[in-house]
Amino acid sequence: MNKKTLIVVAHPNLDQSRVNRTWLEQLRREEESITIHDLAAAGANGHFDIAAEQQLLEAHQRIIIQFPLFWFNVPALLKQWLDEVFAYGWAFGPGGDKLNGKEIGLAVSTGGKAESYAEGFTMEMLLSPVRLTILYVGATPLPTHLIHGALQDLSDEELTQNASDYLQHVKSAIAA
Amino acid sequence: MNKKTLIVVAHPNLDQSRVNRTWLEQLRREEESITIHDLAAAGANGHFDIAAEQQLLEAHQRIIIQFPLFWFNVPALLKQWLDEVFAYGWAFGPGGDKLNGKEIGLAVSTGGKAESYAEGFTMEMLLSPVRLTILYVGATPLPTHLIHGALQDLSDEELTQNASDYLQHVKSAIAA
Repeated sequence: MNKKTLIVVAHPNLDQSRVNRTWLEQLRREEESITIHDLAAAGANGHFDIAAEQQLLEAHQRIIIQFPLFWFNVPALLKQWLDEVFAYGWAFGPGGDKLNGKEIGLAVSTGGKAESYAEGFTMEMLLSPVRLTILYVGATPLPTHLIHGALQDLSDEELTQNASDYLQHVKSAIAA
Repeated sequence: MNKKTLIVVAHPNLDQSRVNRTWLEQLRREEESITIHDLAAAGANGHFDIAAEQQLLEAHQRIIIQFPLFWFNVPALLKQWLDEVFAYGWAFGPGGDKLNGKEIGLAVSTGGKAESYAEGFTMEMLLSPVRLTILYVGATPLPTHLIHGALQDLSDEELTQNASDYLQHVKSAIAA
């Protein structure tokens, strides 16, 4: 078992990303302890190599799924990966215990300000499908690392601080 | 403006579907009042014709999005459609008022029994990303039509009754 933490990056267009790219620049400083996996590259031909994706997950005990919130939900790229890779007989069902006991966390950026979310909807609610997925496969959820306002009033200083916090989080997050 | 109700069907594999196929058989009896749009066919080459999808939506006042719940969330096919078609300047942002005032509802099937959902998670929570999307684009939400247990103990009689209820729902749903 690889001792590195696996970061699954689900951004369809990293070149145009501010937060996700800055986060990755920070994480790349610690390549001896962090494996970065770019889903946009892995699924560039429209599908994933399911066996390769599953092997990568099996080889890591701690996994963090990093994505921007699109339409208050995971990007299509990440949903496709979940639908294809978290397969019957592997992630659930008979013999489907391969994610059992792993630690899985989320790192999420939002374009709008926290306050712009409609009243009555919380991030906890909006992330509930992926949180329940983590529980359903028998993994232990890690605390979510969050940043709001990527497209609005987030200053460079705030982003730098957040990226530094993210690296610490990846290195030290304790299972919730 | 077309007076028909538009059913956006987001099932990646209708041939293997029990509920979604039965629902459609029922809806096809009323083709004079219902337009059925199959996203798996429309996006078969990996992407949607965004202008054509937007025109179809603009031509209908009432829209129902029909899908099976995969990993407690919309299928990747539907998320891709939302990410591509609900575009800046069309669905939101400057000039993005094209869904404003429309009625949009959901029709959702789940494979497991209602009771198999983990404690503390409700369908209302799990559907919150797409419910908030409907509100964000200025549409009026219709009540959700739901069926549980598609892969388990749902009898043929229950499914037939549900499909008949669904047709009534499509014809008469009152905005919530």
